[in-house]
Amino acid sequence: MTEISRPSRTGLPVVGMIGGGQLARMTHQAAISLGQSLRVLTGDRDESAALVAADVELGSHTDLAALRAFAKGCDVVTFDHEHVPAEHIRALAAEGVRIFPSAEAIRYTQDKRVMRERLSQLGFPVPRWAWLAEAGLADFGLPAIVKTVSGGYDGRGVFLVSSLEDELPETDLIVEELVPLRRELAVQVARSPFGQVAVYPVVQTVQRDGICVEVLAPAPDLPEPVAAQAQQIAIRIAIELGVVGLLAVELFEVDGGGLLVNELAMRPHNSGHWTIEGARTSQFEQHLRAVLDYPMGETHLTAPAVAMANVLGGPPGGMSIDERLHHMMAAEPGVKVHLYGKQIRPGRKIGHVTALGEDMADCRARASRAAAWLQLGEAS
Amino acid sequence: MTEISRPSRTGLPVVGMIGGGQLARMTHQAAISLGQSLRVLTGDRDESAALVAADVELGSHTDLAALRAFAKGCDVVTFDHEHVPAEHIRALAAEGVRIFPSAEAIRYTQDKRVMRERLSQLGFPVPRWAWLAEAGLADFGLPAIVKTVSGGYDGRGVFLVSSLEDELPETDLIVEELVPLRRELAVQVARSPFGQVAVYPVVQTVQRDGICVEVLAPAPDLPEPVAAQAQQIAIRIAIELGVVGLLAVELFEVDGGGLLVNELAMRPHNSGHWTIEGARTSQFEQHLRAVLDYPMGETHLTAPAVAMANVLGGPPGGMSIDERLHHMMAAEPGVKVHLYGKQIRPGRKIGHVTALGEDMADCRARASRAAAWLQLGEAS
Repeated sequence: MTEISRPSRTGLPVVGMIGGGQLARMTHQAAISLGQSLRVLTGDRDESAALVAADVELGSHTDLAALRAFAKGCDVVTFDHEHVPAEHIRALAAEGVRIFPSAEAIRYTQDKRVMRERLSQLGFPVPRWAWLAEAGLADFGLPAIVKTVSGGYDGRGVFLVSSLEDELPETDLIVEELVPLRRELAVQVARSPFGQVAVYPVVQTVQRDGICVEVLAPAPDLPEPVAAQAQQIAIRIAIELGVVGLLAVELFEVDGGGLLVNELAMRPHNSGHWTIEGARTSQFEQHLRAVLDYPMGETHLTAPAVAMANVLGGPPGGMSIDERLHHMMAAEPGVKVHLYGKQIRPGRKIGHVTALGEDMADCRARASRAAAWLQLGEAS
Repeated sequence: MTEISRPSRTGLPVVGMIGGGQLARMTHQAAISLGQSLRVLTGDRDESAALVAADVELGSHTDLAALRAFAKGCDVVTFDHEHVPAEHIRALAAEGVRIFPSAEAIRYTQDKRVMRERLSQLGFPVPRWAWLAEAGLADFGLPAIVKTVSGGYDGRGVFLVSSLEDELPETDLIVEELVPLRRELAVQVARSPFGQVAVYPVVQTVQRDGICVEVLAPAPDLPEPVAAQAQQIAIRIAIELGVVGLLAVELFEVDGGGLLVNELAMRPHNSGHWTIEGARTSQFEQHLRAVLDYPMGETHLTAPAVAMANVLGGPPGGMSIDERLHHMMAAEPGVKVHLYGKQIRPGRKIGHVTALGEDMADCRARASRAAAWLQLGEAS
């Protein structure tokens, strides 16, 4: 076991996060409350987390030497994305670095084929699927969904194929049935090395053009047995795959009411941003607690209804973001805003807003209006 | 008007805070949500805020050249303490620096005699008082409270005098009647340059040895007319003294039910730490909104009862702070912890905890138990 230096002068641990995006930025906020300061490895000094964290190291997440040097200043290392090569994670772990989730767990988020195979073996409900190299599209049946096994996010790497003539990228692909969707759900669950598990209430996610635009907590009108089943699926996946840290399970609720597992993420996730104000423990604090093997925090809702809306970059021109923020705050003094310090590009996630209250329709309307102010400069 | 450089690359303002203690640390957390990164001037790289903020400048708050250089990188400058010489604040403002609260306002927190005189002139209820250099102790009547006009905090600079033989420090002193106290209350109010005012619910503060140990929000069993009067006093003081930013008004509720103004602070204050989870807008975000002339955020309670307990450093030895934190989290998974990254010394405020719920007695018990775990390593 390699000796890990302990740079903290406060007697509290140092967590290192590989990747400096908005997830690391919000994890740093949570770390501050725990007496810590998140250590961030990023390739870009202008990334979201690098703009606000005291302890930032520049380096590439694909460079083992950089990862090794970074890990020396940390008690535990974790991730704000799933792009660190599994062999690097394995190498660090072999050298005694505490790094979570493990290479064995995170590969299920790095390769959709491996994930689908494993979940199928374990008996979890998943859409009918096949490896496209083995099953011809014609045999599988059209229309169908074709996905790249790695690299996809926010709708990228996902194709609706309705004809055998459709052009597809030349990379590893899986094909899945087009599920008769009622809606999409998500569940956050955290698991510690000790094995303690804490699950959050089930939420509904609303997508537009493949991008999550809204999250409603709790998922409205979800029958209690279905909610319990979704939570059980998330807990069992976390245990079966040996996840340490946060696991987000994205689910399809199909017409008729059944559940199918869609995607996994092993880190704080957009579908859990509502927890910052909407749950007693935010997903960011929970992720820190989990990777540090601290006892988990309460996951209760803090209000009967919580609605989160993403803020996407609007078209160029018009009001400045600062002016938009003034108008939004004047119009919606109870909505909580989270801006990520990103350069604005049309369609890019630059922040999110959260509205809390007694009534979901009201919360949803307020969050949507606030997000519209920030991205368009005018209520839609 | 001096041109102020705008170092932010995100289109959002840079607020500079003079002083790097826990107030700046928690203000930085709030700034991150608003798309900002707090710029901190501190004399010590190991101070609470300097450990977690990306943009830290080393320098003394009494050095005008350092203040001037610091202000160049800020859109607005504010304070986490009241120790910047008023002439420096005035000089910066004359050079075009937006700095809040102003020298004219902040002097009421720098000199208790000036504060008492002004509040008396304006007709606010204050304890009977006199300048000790003018009124002899014998004439004033004993027992009485003697206070240094500047430099006191957490019970320091305050003396209960019961005999003419008692020794007193050789500095400017005021004497005040020993008020027949029922309890102490506090009110947070924020005011923007535009003049918008937002007031928080009235809280009860509980002191031990002159140090605030607990804050209860809302103040239990406070008659609504008294609560409204306390809020009106705070609002009127903010307006009359031209405060911009947060103003904390500490009040005595005297036997019989009347209110007297005790102390003022023009910054986020210990009596408002409960707002981080307990109010829809935290005092730290509200202070940023106020000094930036943003619209104020909602001040509603997020739960029927909120109890905050300070964590004081315990005696040397025993369990490490990290081990104590494990025990506390296991025992109280719903209590929110805020540790300031400070070196532990007996009696020093090293953090605080907040419990939220339906019942004040339960919240108070949970917060007290959690604080006891952290400072003693065992529940008291």
